[in-house]
Amino acid sequence: MEIIQSHRCFGGVLHICEHSSDALKGGMRFSIFLPPAAAHDTPVPYITFLSGLTCTHENFTTKAGAYAAAASLGLAILAPDTSPRADDAADDAAAHDLGKGAGFYIDATQTPWASHYRMEHYIAHELAAMIPAAFPVKRDAQGIMGHSMGGHGALTLFFKYPHLYRCASAFAPIVAPSQVPWGQKAFTHYLGDDPAIWLRHDACALVHLADNAHHNSSILIDQGTADPFLQDQLKPELFEQACQAAGQALTLRWQDGYDHSYYFIQSFIADHLRHHAGFLF
Amino acid sequence: MEIIQSHRCFGGVLHICEHSSDALKGGMRFSIFLPPAAAHDTPVPYITFLSGLTCTHENFTTKAGAYAAAASLGLAILAPDTSPRADDAADDAAAHDLGKGAGFYIDATQTPWASHYRMEHYIAHELAAMIPAAFPVKRDAQGIMGHSMGGHGALTLFFKYPHLYRCASAFAPIVAPSQVPWGQKAFTHYLGDDPAIWLRHDACALVHLADNAHHNSSILIDQGTADPFLQDQLKPELFEQACQAAGQALTLRWQDGYDHSYYFIQSFIADHLRHHAGFLF
Repeated sequence: MEIIQSHRCFGGVLHICEHSSDALKGGMRFSIFLPPAAAHDTPVPYITFLSGLTCTHENFTTKAGAYAAAASLGLAILAPDTSPRADDAADDAAAHDLGKGAGFYIDATQTPWASHYRMEHYIAHELAAMIPAAFPVKRDAQGIMGHSMGGHGALTLFFKYPHLYRCASAFAPIVAPSQVPWGQKAFTHYLGDDPAIWLRHDACALVHLADNAHHNSSILIDQGTADPFLQDQLKPELFEQACQAAGQALTLRWQDGYDHSYYFIQSFIADHLRHHAGFLF
Repeated sequence: MEIIQSHRCFGGVLHICEHSSDALKGGMRFSIFLPPAAAHDTPVPYITFLSGLTCTHENFTTKAGAYAAAASLGLAILAPDTSPRADDAADDAAAHDLGKGAGFYIDATQTPWASHYRMEHYIAHELAAMIPAAFPVKRDAQGIMGHSMGGHGALTLFFKYPHLYRCASAFAPIVAPSQVPWGQKAFTHYLGDDPAIWLRHDACALVHLADNAHHNSSILIDQGTADPFLQDQLKPELFEQACQAAGQALTLRWQDGYDHSYYFIQSFIADHLRHHAGFLF
């Protein structure tokens, strides 16, 4: 792992890092922000932020405006990429919702994707081991957060790895991939055409299987009412119903007039960081 | 003028706009953020932010993290582009410091630049007339702010147009273009090789000619100590000396370990907005 850029930011430091991933079989980049409280290698809680379709680690890093609140709360933030990037990884260059930039935070089982598309393993195993070994963050005080496809990633990994993530939140998440076009397309290519297998990676299904420990940790979701993907791809009401049936505490906030952009995310990111801080300190 | 994108942001709205500029003879884009206080067309004070070399209106708009503080202070922010963009405008595509992306906020007098490169006229006349006519901002309550080449723009336009701009601040500004390589190259191409003419566009010279009214309005400058351009291109100590000699109040803050990036700008932008608010309300 190599730190290729470091920028002082709000009294802390933002590193851009490059490493060779075993899970994804190729070079990857991520950013990590360390707040002033992490100076002198003092470990701090951290949050992993998973980005949406077409993004790299850069979108959140440059556009989310998260570091002012992270610095004052004493939280580190890890922002990984959204898919493998190796030259020999399969891709569909014409599609924004399949292949590079669209890993969906699952481990693909189908040809030609299975060899490189192992984003679940990358986030929840490889980075989860590597980051606390390389940076002053607390292995046992991690939250997970994401946007759109990354909101799907955050919710599903939260349910799949109850001992790794203490808390979760999302901006305009895909909550029911099995029931919407983005998810159905990706899951068909990556996992095959059996919808029963898709449900293992669908937050609306996983919430019913969740470890009871999570029922004490409320989930925060913000959704803009002017989001162009709301009706066809996001459908947060499905997750609201599932949480209610499963007894999972959820705060779903409808944000009037907000869209799907990072202007929406930056408007509420401080609330999300405070939500996580409540569970991580 | 056409609004091509609008995003709700911190309870206000960010517009991306396109228009045909008379001064620059071609299409231009800018962004303008209107805080919640500007709802129902209530005019608010505004700040023009001038960006640095290679930038468009987008860099500040997406990366500066300015809108949280602008929303709470009730300030609008205009972010123009850095040069003409018409296809037939002269350019030096290989250079980052001449031609497109490098207008230096002056009106060029030399061939082939003079026909399109009139950024001073564009900012201080064309936009200064157009913006208050199109948006709820107060014509008589404007501040100016900038980064690097845009810091040079902010300081020089502040001195040249004392009745237009009430206050000024800058991040890592070029303060003495006549004495540094970036400025000498640009001024030679745009203005010719007479250094006496250059001084009409050099903050360190202009401060001595400034309208006395400005001596009541302190200038705020932040400069990172780890800025790679500090020694060769920026030299803020020259401006500090000039302000002292001219009786211009200046607060020059050395920010330990900060570089030239937007991570530096976002760390201190709220301080700058508060500085301006002190003069605009």
